[in-house]
Amino acid sequence: MVSPRRLGAFLTFEGIDGSGKSTQARHLAETLSQAGHDVVLTREPGGSPGAEEIRNLLLHGDPDRWSAETELLMFTAARRDHVERTIRPALEAGKVVICDRFVDSTRVYQGITRGDLRGTVDALHALMIGLEADLTFLIDMNPGVAHARATKRIGSEARFENFGLELHATLRAGFLNLAHRTRRFRIVDGNRTEAEIAADVTRIAHGFLDTLE
Amino acid sequence: MVSPRRLGAFLTFEGIDGSGKSTQARHLAETLSQAGHDVVLTREPGGSPGAEEIRNLLLHGDPDRWSAETELLMFTAARRDHVERTIRPALEAGKVVICDRFVDSTRVYQGITRGDLRGTVDALHALMIGLEADLTFLIDMNPGVAHARATKRIGSEARFENFGLELHATLRAGFLNLAHRTRRFRIVDGNRTEAEIAADVTRIAHGFLDTLE
Ligand SMILES: Nc1ncnc2c1ncn2[C@@H]1O[C@H](COP(=O)(O)OP(=O)(O)O)[C@@H](O)[C@H]1O
Ligand SMILES: Nc1ncnc2c1ncn2[C@@H]1O[C@H](COP(=O)(O)OP(=O)(O)O)[C@@H](O)[C@H]1O
Ligand SMILES: [Mg+2]
Ligand SMILES: [Mg+2]
Repeated sequence: MVSPRRLGAFLTFEGIDGSGKSTQARHLAETLSQAGHDVVLTREPGGSPGAEEIRNLLLHGDPDRWSAETELLMFTAARRDHVERTIRPALEAGKVVICDRFVDSTRVYQGITRGDLRGTVDALHALMIGLEADLTFLIDMNPGVAHARATKRIGSEARFENFGLELHATLRAGFLNLAHRTRRFRIVDGNRTEAEIAADVTRIAHGFLDTLE
Repeated sequence: MVSPRRLGAFLTFEGIDGSGKSTQARHLAETLSQAGHDVVLTREPGGSPGAEEIRNLLLHGDPDRWSAETELLMFTAARRDHVERTIRPALEAGKVVICDRFVDSTRVYQGITRGDLRGTVDALHALMIGLEADLTFLIDMNPGVAHARATKRIGSEARFENFGLELHATLRAGFLNLAHRTRRFRIVDGNRTEAEIAADVTRIAHGFLDTLE
């Protein structure tokens, strides 16, 4: 058992749909809890009551009724709420916050898929959010396999899943590109069993948290 | 009758609640239509289907469930949609767009009333919206009288009306301050009859539009 840390740590999972982010985030939350860390597991878009309301607005209705820029502003509003209400209070209480997607998903999805908004995403994030993860896991994997997994899912999440395979490959390249030029990223091979990936993620997380004790 | 103008003109009405903005915006729209202009009368928050959805989210539920910054992002998302879908297309078609509140209301309400966000409002507007009115009418008047008028209104608009009298005076000062340092503003004395105010507004609007012909 470790004693609660004073400054907390902010760990995020990124990657294309179906790559196993939610699965690995749950695994890591359980593992770190069992090791005595005070863990908050959260996700985007959503993660706080206000952000969930905005998420609902984005998920329902015609996804193309807003432009990329309007959608970016709404994601940023949801993120601001999520950071204020959920993430920052937990970090200030010394907890380990594990977040399933954060601004890197916006950098890749809004930054690449609907015109080049990368500069706008970064400027808006710097102006209105500021917070970056301490450590980010990119679950990297074959986009065809991830796409097949993701398209098996149905229902209200369809809004974020109905991208074609070609776009999936573009997004994967976008994540890899971002990871290669950003120090806090750790690229994990997602083309393996859950247990194999979890072992890597756990080892990296423990190594990182040890540097903070 | 005048022939339709090629570049359009963007006229806005600003001022505290109850000062007569909506009344004067309607008057001016009618007067300019009768003079042969192609007029679009719109309002904020709202003014396009997507922006109305966001307006509904802001109007309903506990108004304090979002921070000033989150609310600012949502107003900006609504404005982006309104500008893209309603205002810019009309201006590009050479129309006269009359808007009941625009970013100056955000500068004053979000910029002053919930902490000093003026710098943030300006930076966010420059990054995500860009458009400013060509001419802005500030209907300036006694805050006590305007407040008494505004509090007579009930229903779903209550969200934006339940500010106290003291705040009304602060907001009035905020609008005047902004108007005094911004060239496109025309300050109109709202402590008069509808017809008297309308006569001033009409004269100023015609004078301005004549410079564009
Ligand atoms: N390593 C893995 N091997 C096989 N299937 C997996 C693996 N990891 C996750 N899955 C399954 O793939 C699907 C997508 O996983 P999920 O964690 O929801 O991905 P994401 O959150 O990245 O979209 C789920 O049905 C999950 O059970
Ligand atoms: N010059 C005026 N004198 C008296 N009452 C007015 C005048 N202008 C508007 N009103 C009334 O005051 C109320 C608020 O006017 P409104 O145009 O809705 O203001 P705002 O849009 O600025 O909140 C309405 O009931 C309106 O009929
Ligand atoms: Mg997931
Ligand atoms: Mg009004």
